[in-house]
Amino acid sequence: MNISRRTQNVTGTRSSVGIPLVVSLLVGAFFLLPAACRKAPAPPAAAEGVDPVLAELADFLAIPNVASDAPNIRRNAGHLAGLMRARGIDVRLLEHEGAPPVVYGEIAAPGARRTLLVYAHYDGQPVDPARWASDPWTPVLRSGRLEDGAPVVPLDSLPEGPDGDEWRLYARGASDDKGTIIAFLAALDRLQADGIPLSVNVKMLFEGEEEVGSPHLESVLRAHSALFRADGLLLCDGPVHQTRRPQIVFGARGVMGLEMTVYGPARALHSGHYGNWAPNPAAQLAGLISSLRDDQGKVLVPGYYDDVRPLSASEKEALEKAPRVEEDLLREFALSWSEGSGARLEELIMRPALNVRGLLSGGVAEKAANAVPPEARASIDFRLVADQTPARVRELVEAHLRSLGWTVVHDAPGEDARRRAPRLIHLEWESGYPAYRAPLDAPFSQALVRSLVQAVGGSLVVMPALGGSIPMELFDRVLSVPIALLPIANHDNNQHGPDENLRIRNLREGITLHAALLSGLGAAWE
Amino acid sequence: MNISRRTQNVTGTRSSVGIPLVVSLLVGAFFLLPAACRKAPAPPAAAEGVDPVLAELADFLAIPNVASDAPNIRRNAGHLAGLMRARGIDVRLLEHEGAPPVVYGEIAAPGARRTLLVYAHYDGQPVDPARWASDPWTPVLRSGRLEDGAPVVPLDSLPEGPDGDEWRLYARGASDDKGTIIAFLAALDRLQADGIPLSVNVKMLFEGEEEVGSPHLESVLRAHSALFRADGLLLCDGPVHQTRRPQIVFGARGVMGLEMTVYGPARALHSGHYGNWAPNPAAQLAGLISSLRDDQGKVLVPGYYDDVRPLSASEKEALEKAPRVEEDLLREFALSWSEGSGARLEELIMRPALNVRGLLSGGVAEKAANAVPPEARASIDFRLVADQTPARVRELVEAHLRSLGWTVVHDAPGEDARRRAPRLIHLEWESGYPAYRAPLDAPFSQALVRSLVQAVGGSLVVMPALGGSIPMELFDRVLSVPIALLPIANHDNNQHGPDENLRIRNLREGITLHAALLSGLGAAWE
Repeated sequence: MNISRRTQNVTGTRSSVGIPLVVSLLVGAFFLLPAACRKAPAPPAAAEGVDPVLAELADFLAIPNVASDAPNIRRNAGHLAGLMRARGIDVRLLEHEGAPPVVYGEIAAPGARRTLLVYAHYDGQPVDPARWASDPWTPVLRSGRLEDGAPVVPLDSLPEGPDGDEWRLYARGASDDKGTIIAFLAALDRLQADGIPLSVNVKMLFEGEEEVGSPHLESVLRAHSALFRADGLLLCDGPVHQTRRPQIVFGARGVMGLEMTVYGPARALHSGHYGNWAPNPAAQLAGLISSLRDDQGKVLVPGYYDDVRPLSASEKEALEKAPRVEEDLLREFALSWSEGSGARLEELIMRPALNVRGLLSGGVAEKAANAVPPEARASIDFRLVADQTPARVRELVEAHLRSLGWTVVHDAPGEDARRRAPRLIHLEWESGYPAYRAPLDAPFSQALVRSLVQAVGGSLVVMPALGGSIPMELFDRVLSVPIALLPIANHDNNQHGPDENLRIRNLREGITLHAALLSGLGAAWE
Repeated sequence: MNISRRTQNVTGTRSSVGIPLVVSLLVGAFFLLPAACRKAPAPPAAAEGVDPVLAELADFLAIPNVASDAPNIRRNAGHLAGLMRARGIDVRLLEHEGAPPVVYGEIAAPGARRTLLVYAHYDGQPVDPARWASDPWTPVLRSGRLEDGAPVVPLDSLPEGPDGDEWRLYARGASDDKGTIIAFLAALDRLQADGIPLSVNVKMLFEGEEEVGSPHLESVLRAHSALFRADGLLLCDGPVHQTRRPQIVFGARGVMGLEMTVYGPARALHSGHYGNWAPNPAAQLAGLISSLRDDQGKVLVPGYYDDVRPLSASEKEALEKAPRVEEDLLREFALSWSEGSGARLEELIMRPALNVRGLLSGGVAEKAANAVPPEARASIDFRLVADQTPARVRELVEAHLRSLGWTVVHDAPGEDARRRAPRLIHLEWESGYPAYRAPLDAPFSQALVRSLVQAVGGSLVVMPALGGSIPMELFDRVLSVPIALLPIANHDNNQHGPDENLRIRNLREGITLHAALLSGLGAAWE
C-alpha cells in the first residue's frame, strides 16, 4: 500500500484555517490495520501531474450518482469501497433490498476511549444536462466561477498555493456530497503522512439514497445497530457559512416531497374552440398554489405551524451571534428582496417552508401550442422543523385541499374518475423525515466546538440548525447517539441545481477541519 | 397530364352529405387552362394500391411544417405548388422578406360572373414528439381512434365504403390544415372527372405562417391586392360541428400570445438553505395567474370586456339553433364540469378568453430537484372577439400588472435589473390579430348557406363565429371582401396537441362540400 502518492498537494499550502500543514513524503504505517486489510489493493494511480486529491475526486465524480440509476449507484459504492480499502480501511457493503449499498468502514485508534461515527452520502440530485454548462458527469476544473466567465482549465494546471483557492471543480456531487467524502479520506491520509495519531476510533457510513429522502436508512440502521454503535455521530454534508467561515451545526430541517397533478380535458384541446369552456388545469393549479403559501413564503395550510418547537435561549443567542449575510446574498443572487416579511435568513430556516420546486403544464416559448393542456403538475418540497412530522403535514395538507373542494386521490385517476370529480387532484407523497435539533450544551456538542475552535479560532460559526435536510432525527431515534453536522462545501456551490461545484479552498480547508477533529476531538471529549 | 389517376377513391362511396357521387374514369379537359399551364408536370404517382387522395395527403404531411423551420416550410410550399401545377393551375410563389412563401393559384371558369378566393394554410403547430404515439411527420393510418386502441394499418388497407369512414390519418397538419387543401384539390379533380363545370372563378391563397399569427400576411395582401381581388373569400380551416354535422361560419375569434417570465434567484438555490428566504418565482407566477383569470375562466383584467361587440338578434337566434353538444363533449373529454358558470359552449366562444397554454419552472417528477428555481414562465393565449384589439388588450394587461406592483420589461432583464425590482416581469407579446364577424344576411353569406343547404340539407349548422382564430379581420380590412369559413376537419382531431388526426369520413365529406360549392355557388349568388 503506497500511501505517499496521495499526500494532498491540494492542501500543500498553508491554509488560513490555521493548522500547520506539512507536505510530507513519509510513508506511515499509522493505522492498526485489521489483518483482512493488509492485502487491500493499491489506489488507482492519479493522472500524470494532477493533484492526487483532485484526481481522486474527479474520478469519483465521473460515475453518475442519481439514486434511481441502480447500476451506476452500485458502481459508485464499489468505487468508494475501493478508495477506502486502498487506505487499509476495513470495508463492508451493507445490502438492503431495494436500496443502494451502504458503504461501511472502520478504523480502530489505539488507546482511544471514544468512537466517532462519520456519515456522508455518495448519491446526488437528478440532473437536467441541457441546463448545465458542461456535462454533469464529466468533472471540469475552472479557474474561478462559471458565472464570472472562468474558463475550463486542465486538471493538472491547479496551482498549489492560494492562487488556486478560488478555482472550482464542476460536476454533480462535487459539493453534495462526494467532495466531503474525498476530503475526509484525504484528512486520514494527511494525519498518517504527518505521523499524527487518530484521537478517536472512527466508523464510516456512506449512504447512496440521501437525495431521495433515505427511504431505507432506518431499516439499515436497525439491521446493523451494533455495527454503528458510537459515542457521537458526525454528519458530513452541506455548505459552510455564507461568509465562507467554517461552521458546526447541531440540527437540520426535515424534508418531504409532493407531486401534485390536476386535470383538464383528457387530451389537449384547441384553445380557440374550447378555451374558456374546457377547464384549464394550469389556471386551477395556480389557484391551488396560491392557497398553499403567500408571497412572503408563509404557509397557509391551517395548523401547519402548530407543532413547531420554539427556540431555546441558547439557540436564540447563537442565531444572534451569526454573521449578517443577507446584503451580500441579495447581491450575489441578483435579488431585490427576500421572503419572510423582513425576518433574517437564520431565523427563517428555523421555520418550516413550502417550496415550489417545479411547475409543468403544456408548453412555453417555442413549445407553446394554443391548446388547453390535459393536466398541470407542481412539485413541492416541504422543509420541516423540530417536532413537526411528515405524517402530520400530509394530513394537514390533504385536509386543507379537501376543505377547498378538492377530491384527493393517491393513484393516477382514470377517465371515469375524471368525469366524476370537478376538482380532482392526484397527490404523490415522497417519503420524508422530520427535523432534529441537539442541545447546544451536550458534552459531544461542546467537545466539537472546543476542538474546532482550537483549529480555526473565533471564525467558527455555531448554528443551532441547518436549513437543509439531513436524516438526523432518524439517527437519534434509532441509534440514540448525539449528532452534529460539519459541512465543508462553499455556500455558492449550486447544490441541487445545474453547475454544482466545489471551491478548491473549501476542499483544502475541509481536509484541515477533518484532520483537526480526528486528531483533537478525543482530548476535548471528557 | 393524366388527371384520371386521381379520381378520389377516398370518396368512392355514397356520402351521407347528399351529393350523388360518381366514380368516373373519364379524362376531362374541363378547365380553361392558361397557356403556361399546359406543360405542367404530372403529379407524383400514388403508391401502389393506396387511395390516391390519401396518398397525396400522406406525402404532403411527411414534410415537417412548423413555420419557424424555414427550409422545410419552403419544401412544403414547393410541394404544394407542384400538386397545383399538376392540375393545370396557374401557380405563383409570392415571396415576402422573412415570411414563408404564399402559394397562389387561379382557375378561370368560362361564363362565371363571380370570383371566389379560397384561403388555407400549409404550416402547422409546433410538436413535442415525445408526447405523440407516432412520429408527427410520419403519417400513419389507424383503423379508428388512437384513444380507443385502434392499431396502425397499412395505407393501402383503407376500405372504399363506409367501413373506412371512422379510420383516421395521424400526423401534424392532417386536419389543420393540409387535409383541407388536399380535399379542395380533390374536389376540383372530382368535378373535372364528372364533367361538372366550376360556377365561379377560383383564386387560391395558401399561407405558411398561420400558426404563428400570420405576421406578414397583411404586407403580402397589400403587396398583391389586385391579384387577390374577389367577390367573396372562403377560409378553409377549423373543425366541423361537434355533432359531426357540416357547418358554415361567419366569424372567428382573434388571437394573441404572451410569454411571461418572473424571476427568483440568479441561479437555482438549495431549497433547504434558502427556501422561504429566496423569493420563489413559481409561487409568484401562480399568484399572478390567479390575478388574471378566475376558476370559471372570467378574465379579471379591468376593462377587458369593455370593447366586446354585443350579439345581434340573428346571431343570438343562430346560437339558439345550434345543436346541444356539451353532454357528449364532457364525456368525450373526461370532464365533470365546464368553465363559464353554466353558459353554453356556443355562448362562451362568443366571449374573449385567456388560456394558460403552458407553465414551466424548475422540474417535476423525476426532474424535481429540491431547489428554488431561478425563474418561472407562463405561456398564455388570448382569444379576442369582435371590436377588441390586440393593442388595447396589451395595454390593459400591462396596466393591470403595474397596478399589482409588477415592473414590466420587454427585454430579458440582466442581473442589475433583477436586483432593483422586487416584482419584475418580462413580457414577450406575439403579434396577434382581432376577431371578425360578418353579417349573417349579406348576399355572400346567404349564397353560401343556400348552396350548402342544397347539398347537405338541414344538417348544416350556421355559426356566427368560430372559437378558433383565423385572420378574417385582416382580409376584411385589406381586401374589403365578404368572408366566410368552411371547415371540414373532425372536431376531435387533437388539433394543436399531440396525435393530430383527420377522420376519413371528414376528408370524404370535405371533398363533397367543396365540390358542391364550386359547382353551385355561382347560381345562388345573385
